[in-house]
Amino acid sequence: MWKGNSLIDVLNIDYPIIQAGMAGGVTTPELVSAVSNTGALGNLGAGYMTPEAMVQSVKEIKRITNRTFGVNVFVPQNPQATEEEIAEANKWLEPYRNELGIEQEPTPEQDVALFEKQIEGLMTEQVPVVSFTFGVPTREVIKDLKKEEIVVIGTATTVEEAIINEEYGMDMVVAQGSEAGGHRGTFSGAFDDAMIGTMSLVPQVVDHVKIPVIAAGGIMDGRGIKAALALGAQAAQLGTAFVTCKESGAKVQHKEAILNTKETETVVTSVFSGKPARGIRNSFIEKMENGEGHHLLAYPLQNTLTKDIRKEAASQNRPEYMSLWSGQSPRLSTSQSASSIVESIVFDLENEKM
Amino acid sequence: MWKGNSLIDVLNIDYPIIQAGMAGGVTTPELVSAVSNTGALGNLGAGYMTPEAMVQSVKEIKRITNRTFGVNVFVPQNPQATEEEIAEANKWLEPYRNELGIEQEPTPEQDVALFEKQIEGLMTEQVPVVSFTFGVPTREVIKDLKKEEIVVIGTATTVEEAIINEEYGMDMVVAQGSEAGGHRGTFSGAFDDAMIGTMSLVPQVVDHVKIPVIAAGGIMDGRGIKAALALGAQAAQLGTAFVTCKESGAKVQHKEAILNTKETETVVTSVFSGKPARGIRNSFIEKMENGEGHHLLAYPLQNTLTKDIRKEAASQNRPEYMSLWSGQSPRLSTSQSASSIVESIVFDLENEKM
Repeated sequence: MWKGNSLIDVLNIDYPIIQAGMAGGVTTPELVSAVSNTGALGNLGAGYMTPEAMVQSVKEIKRITNRTFGVNVFVPQNPQATEEEIAEANKWLEPYRNELGIEQEPTPEQDVALFEKQIEGLMTEQVPVVSFTFGVPTREVIKDLKKEEIVVIGTATTVEEAIINEEYGMDMVVAQGSEAGGHRGTFSGAFDDAMIGTMSLVPQVVDHVKIPVIAAGGIMDGRGIKAALALGAQAAQLGTAFVTCKESGAKVQHKEAILNTKETETVVTSVFSGKPARGIRNSFIEKMENGEGHHLLAYPLQNTLTKDIRKEAASQNRPEYMSLWSGQSPRLSTSQSASSIVESIVFDLENEKM
Repeated sequence: MWKGNSLIDVLNIDYPIIQAGMAGGVTTPELVSAVSNTGALGNLGAGYMTPEAMVQSVKEIKRITNRTFGVNVFVPQNPQATEEEIAEANKWLEPYRNELGIEQEPTPEQDVALFEKQIEGLMTEQVPVVSFTFGVPTREVIKDLKKEEIVVIGTATTVEEAIINEEYGMDMVVAQGSEAGGHRGTFSGAFDDAMIGTMSLVPQVVDHVKIPVIAAGGIMDGRGIKAALALGAQAAQLGTAFVTCKESGAKVQHKEAILNTKETETVVTSVFSGKPARGIRNSFIEKMENGEGHHLLAYPLQNTLTKDIRKEAASQNRPEYMSLWSGQSPRLSTSQSASSIVESIVFDLENEKM
């Protein structure tokens, strides 16, 4: 039974359903507010957004909903790359740029103060919920947000990472299983060791932290949410399920790809961003993975290098060169509206009989 | 709700709990009958057993229980290896044989008629349930078994494999998620593509077959079984959970290793048998995996080559050279008796409140 669990109370939502704050334009203000208006928790994926764009989207969301919503941000890391490494990484991307007619070679730059400015914006806007991926911020950042009565949610892919999140003061933690689409949230230990299936990860995390656990990875419908609750989670987070919905800002080729993919056709790859992420296998992944000794820059530098390729591939309708993030349950994807997705799940939940 | 689902009726058991038929001496007649006596389904793992030893164990099980039990067998494959390949594979194992003082170098032999003789024995003994791993047998074998009113259960790691099992006439199918310990049941397509988490695999399989689905992979307690039922499975199969129990025939070092392992410490490797299997990382796996260009024979030939090493390592108390099969939920393992494991799960099931 989920009714009246502490997570529902703290977030002041009606149902234990959370729409993942996916970066890259998927989580439009329309999607976030549509989800929140149903009584679930919508999240803006602000990972790659400028503070200005993020604040503008937040204001837009506030216009369309007065329910709780959240914003997801990426805990920064600032890797350095030498001119030689950048040239080497660009060399491997040249064939795709040539094929797509991209002349300008990007220089990997990043705003090292981005995260700090995002946090300022979130506090100024009094965003109700802020979630983090790729690690935990400083205790000061967490303390500042909590002082503003902002609920903070962390991401863990192992029991140890969940314990770290609790120890740093997170109010809740997302347990991201290996089925999950998009980037792995792993921040402590090796990525390969942190590929734990949701069925295994959730109960082991629940046994080791006192804060509410949110299950993520492979969950698409009422069956998955009931399973997550049975495992001891207080809510489930769905990403891929919302990528294909009407209000999603995902590229049409991305939506089509998920709707037509089998469970055996996703892979975890670092070729797009420099960090492992699960998406639908395509020729960019295959060629880059097989490129002998090909060089990738660390995240987020590699991401800036492939950005123009992904963008141009989309506008030229070449999905084989796009990042088609998806979890392992694409056969369960639908193109209904965000509200119908939540409503059909709620219908199953209200009917507790298995 | 699970009571009175068709699987329970067909198997004439009381609870939707199945003890996996693990090969290699884990599933002693005491374990199988203890599980069946509780009203769950115990299974003898006869994969590597001679027909004589299998029949002897079956007779022993019948003496201790009059409830339904099953036997698991391996669908055979008969790979060939040249003298050169065998010599090459043995070369990589030499250091371990030397360290353990093993003088005799084994020649990989297999009884190509083993499976046929096992099936004969199972029919003569009128074993109530026969389950298969590593593929589907011929339609004739399935027809013969069903003529004897033996329930046949297949194993699938993808939706496609589940459909093949149903199409061949299996009465039920186990959906084995990537969390599962021991050998991957994959028999169609690439092993890497068939690493689907249980949370994703089960509902997608349930949507594509009419026969009852049994969830396997990462399930250790009542939470996991409730989750499996929520996903649409009619029962759950537990392997690792029973390896550490009192009646298990697993080596003491194997039990201890599982009881002291974290969820991040298992890997899928082919170095022991020639087929991918999930077990606890140890130095044999690390050295063999890192051995540049090391040569492995195909399953089951590689298994016969490493048998003496695993056996001698156990008797010399050298777990670093043993195959320590485990799923991804070792933190949930306990050393209680088989009956207490089933009883505690049933207690949770009877108490449907989540």
